[in-house]
Amino acid sequence: MKDLTPTVTTGPLPASRRVWHDGTVHPGIRVPMREIDLHPTAGEAPVTVYDSSGPYTDPDAAIDLDRGLPRLRESWIDARGDVETYEGRHVTPEDNGFAEGGRRVPEFPVRHAPRRATKGQAVTQMAYARAGIVTPEMEFVAIRENMGRAAAKEALARDGEDFGAEIPDFITPEFVRDEVARGRAIIPVNINHPEVEPMAIGRNFLVKINANIGNSAVTSSMAEEVEKMVWATRWGADTVMDLSTGRNIHNIRDWILRNSPVPIGTVPLYQALEKVGGIAEDLTWEVYRDTLIEQAEQGVDYFTIHAGVRLHMIPMTVDRVTGIVSRGGSIMAKWCLHHHRESFLYEHFAEICEIARAYDVSFSLGDGLRPGSIADANDRAQFAELETLGELTRIAWAQDCQVMIEGPGHVPMHKIKANMDKQLATCGEAPFYTLGPLTTDIAPGYDHITSGIGAAMIGWFGTAMLCYVTPKEHLGLPDRDDVKTGVITYKIAAHAADLAKGHPAAQARDDALSRARFEFRWEDQFNLSLDPETARSMHDETLPKEAHKVAHFCSMCGPKFCSMRISHDIRAEAQKEGMEKMAEKFREGGDLYMPLEDVK
Amino acid sequence: MKDLTPTVTTGPLPASRRVWHDGTVHPGIRVPMREIDLHPTAGEAPVTVYDSSGPYTDPDAAIDLDRGLPRLRESWIDARGDVETYEGRHVTPEDNGFAEGGRRVPEFPVRHAPRRATKGQAVTQMAYARAGIVTPEMEFVAIRENMGRAAAKEALARDGEDFGAEIPDFITPEFVRDEVARGRAIIPVNINHPEVEPMAIGRNFLVKINANIGNSAVTSSMAEEVEKMVWATRWGADTVMDLSTGRNIHNIRDWILRNSPVPIGTVPLYQALEKVGGIAEDLTWEVYRDTLIEQAEQGVDYFTIHAGVRLHMIPMTVDRVTGIVSRGGSIMAKWCLHHHRESFLYEHFAEICEIARAYDVSFSLGDGLRPGSIADANDRAQFAELETLGELTRIAWAQDCQVMIEGPGHVPMHKIKANMDKQLATCGEAPFYTLGPLTTDIAPGYDHITSGIGAAMIGWFGTAMLCYVTPKEHLGLPDRDDVKTGVITYKIAAHAADLAKGHPAAQARDDALSRARFEFRWEDQFNLSLDPETARSMHDETLPKEAHKVAHFCSMCGPKFCSMRISHDIRAEAQKEGMEKMAEKFREGGDLYMPLEDVK
Repeated sequence: MKDLTPTVTTGPLPASRRVWHDGTVHPGIRVPMREIDLHPTAGEAPVTVYDSSGPYTDPDAAIDLDRGLPRLRESWIDARGDVETYEGRHVTPEDNGFAEGGRRVPEFPVRHAPRRATKGQAVTQMAYARAGIVTPEMEFVAIRENMGRAAAKEALARDGEDFGAEIPDFITPEFVRDEVARGRAIIPVNINHPEVEPMAIGRNFLVKINANIGNSAVTSSMAEEVEKMVWATRWGADTVMDLSTGRNIHNIRDWILRNSPVPIGTVPLYQALEKVGGIAEDLTWEVYRDTLIEQAEQGVDYFTIHAGVRLHMIPMTVDRVTGIVSRGGSIMAKWCLHHHRESFLYEHFAEICEIARAYDVSFSLGDGLRPGSIADANDRAQFAELETLGELTRIAWAQDCQVMIEGPGHVPMHKIKANMDKQLATCGEAPFYTLGPLTTDIAPGYDHITSGIGAAMIGWFGTAMLCYVTPKEHLGLPDRDDVKTGVITYKIAAHAADLAKGHPAAQARDDALSRARFEFRWEDQFNLSLDPETARSMHDETLPKEAHKVAHFCSMCGPKFCSMRISHDIRAEAQKEGMEKMAEKFREGGDLYMPLEDVK
Repeated sequence: MKDLTPTVTTGPLPASRRVWHDGTVHPGIRVPMREIDLHPTAGEAPVTVYDSSGPYTDPDAAIDLDRGLPRLRESWIDARGDVETYEGRHVTPEDNGFAEGGRRVPEFPVRHAPRRATKGQAVTQMAYARAGIVTPEMEFVAIRENMGRAAAKEALARDGEDFGAEIPDFITPEFVRDEVARGRAIIPVNINHPEVEPMAIGRNFLVKINANIGNSAVTSSMAEEVEKMVWATRWGADTVMDLSTGRNIHNIRDWILRNSPVPIGTVPLYQALEKVGGIAEDLTWEVYRDTLIEQAEQGVDYFTIHAGVRLHMIPMTVDRVTGIVSRGGSIMAKWCLHHHRESFLYEHFAEICEIARAYDVSFSLGDGLRPGSIADANDRAQFAELETLGELTRIAWAQDCQVMIEGPGHVPMHKIKANMDKQLATCGEAPFYTLGPLTTDIAPGYDHITSGIGAAMIGWFGTAMLCYVTPKEHLGLPDRDDVKTGVITYKIAAHAADLAKGHPAAQARDDALSRARFEFRWEDQFNLSLDPETARSMHDETLPKEAHKVAHFCSMCGPKFCSMRISHDIRAEAQKEGMEKMAEKFREGGDLYMPLEDVK
């Protein structure tokens, strides 16, 4: 297998260590975080940040891509006593698009027999939450979300506008349970993806980001996609969607799942369509159902289901500038129109829920009619579908299925908040998961930025997860560099949203970095940044020497014009002159300095 | 001179022509715009866009960097009969930091005798506006802002939230005059920079962007800076600030001014500081005043004046995480503190206005105490200075001087709007000109994005001009690539703001591009984008063939999964089935399709 095994990027980020915090409700769990060490002159404790990278950044972890990651949740799942192992569905040639010979991606070398709920059980985190059970997954999430802030709890100054979110000062396992029980958060963890490090998606948690990967019929291979998955999580992707189309879908997905520390989402419709030779009209409920089971057995954590595209909505898209731009939406619309029938996804949604609850596959209810241009934003088609998504949410919840709702798309800034408000009202506060939105159509090649603007805003307003957009959007399949740019841009958007919402732990990293900047601790400034490599290399383009890493200036302004250097002179002078005391007096309301006339 | 002459990028952008619209109040004026031709299959007129690039994109223009651009405003200025030509100040060695021999940038080859107002006159656009005069500059701006929308006037559907801005459907010269008269807009056009193509900065006009260039003591040369200026305007910079420090400041600026089609701004304090050997304490009003006259005679269109940093505010910065991050602010604070005196800029502001009105130099009142970190946003120091800027605005207006106000800096999203609201209230609606703001501190290397988010938002709220931030911010001096990335990012932010404000002509380009996208007119999609080269090259990475330029798919989804292709199938099917008619019926409220039961 070795010659076919993908190569992935491993090793810690600069000055960083992977550390673990132990559970208390479940003492066996170990929750990973990243600690960034600062220079001794800082006199500051390491900065703890959220870590989505899995074992790949741990130099002590043995990475073997042919075996997959450790199956850490296996014992948790079995301990609940509500699942059975079974033979499972057999892989058929059509699962891989009849790929043969050299075109065939090899099967993943290890096969684990799938688990499913014993008859009638719901094995979803929502079911446990509603039963009052705090699962290990929930405690894992609670510890993870706090980012080590227990100790700093008392120092918190809350500052933000949260638009009705209810982020507590400190996340308890019970809080997580309650959020999952009421459907305001999901923990996407298929029982057949025990390798995953649990994470939560919800308005009262840190804003998450998703990275899309996947080959298309035109380009890319299995090894590239596995590498992109690891690469995306290295830079901060909280979940990854495998949007592969074309051949080898089944086998590529297996490689990704077995090696992924983050939840994996898919659009099962894509594979179903491949199974019927790419002819939308030939899709059937049976083929689709078979695909759901296939993917649930593999361990897919969430399914995008375009069940909201209904027959009567299609005419609403006729006058649009860009029609239907969701792949799944357009496929279903074509099917509905051809057969003059209601969508089989809509009709069979309760049955889909039965499958989902037996594996704990979460739903990402797709916005098949999202706008693809500024002109089409917030139109009747889009909002009609959103109403249906609300209806489907209630059906899913009735079966204890976890749900999030997908959102647009292309939306100008002044129309963004209406999307969030309408989603909250229509879908009972189920987490919102948006693509961007792109705030203008005129910058292909820069749509990570056009959409990063909208993403930051909608994240602030309450969106729980932001689906990244890469610079290649509208132009081609993202490569490794595009994936990184997309992830970093969306980490910026998500973090800007956390800050604006007043998340109690968010600003710590900004403050640590700004202190480093002010004190000319260049290494710390690089290490605390979202992309230490890029920050360092940009600095070093003009000042490459080691001595410059402690220089009290950079090439931007040069030494004489460095405001921070001058600020230090000012402070020094102030100390000499006793300005601190004067400042204090000033703060008390007194006159600090003599009136102007006297000093002239 | 030829061996020392800079090389700049010339020639039209793809499928683009520079066209002119003639004046009517002033029939002699010719206002440039860019027309982008579409593919014949589109059946659409060329798309007209704003063009800041000057003659450099006109293949018929003879560019001679040793002579400078045509002095198109010279006759307009002389026709007003209120200026005199005079010998002017002599250039001294200290003006160029005593640069000698090989380190000396050559003088610009042509010297034009400077003009100034005849004794006591105000030759500012504001003075004319208040006197009821519609200048050629005002009509130029009016035509330019309409972007050829006269013809499309009736087709306008306004859609936006403008937060109290009053953007008319159509910009008349009289509207421009009125906005300038009341101080809500400025037209920065020094009488000694007749090469400039007039533009307006104001909340009721298109949102503008500024690009900073300039060498530092550490890096860069004259030729590079001239090229950066031309390069920045090629991609859409509406004004350019020359922030050079170090040697050769005077001569570099001359080369830039004589070849710049856009207004040039400076921070005169930087050169004044060079003249006193970089020792802030040694600055004097006399040296500063001399520098103002030197630069006004050269033709600088706007001065950043950090007169708002006052002695009593300095203690307010003592507890900040990042102190004072404005270069000018820190220099003035150091001076004030050292001398225990009020700022000489504040004390002499009325005299500064006397100089400005004699040359029509606009003010950009500097925010010397802007926050340099999220922690310091919207603090007491920042807002105390803003109050003073309001006071200075009134002093300048009393002398018919044009004024805009600089704004932050680093501000989390939830604190951005307060900046705009406070600026409007405090500064009498004088145009706001902000740097970003950066919405988080944790992404050095990507601060074009952290700030692009804030810039789009504050532009929407009413900021008239956005000062770009490049990826190199905090790390080094931007190179040519950084300048382009910064400009494109800020064009995105400005355009997203125009859309959200409901600017009546903004969405036309989005719509044209989206139609091209939907119709697989790839060439049109590239040509209509802000950066055609990048869009094309990203597409061509995977599909380089000419045949792919009309392909009904791209590598992102491949042919079978192209939603737009499927949408066309849907439309075709719909036509076959008479869906248009059904859609119409549906829009009338009828049942479009048979009930579900009947079709099963």
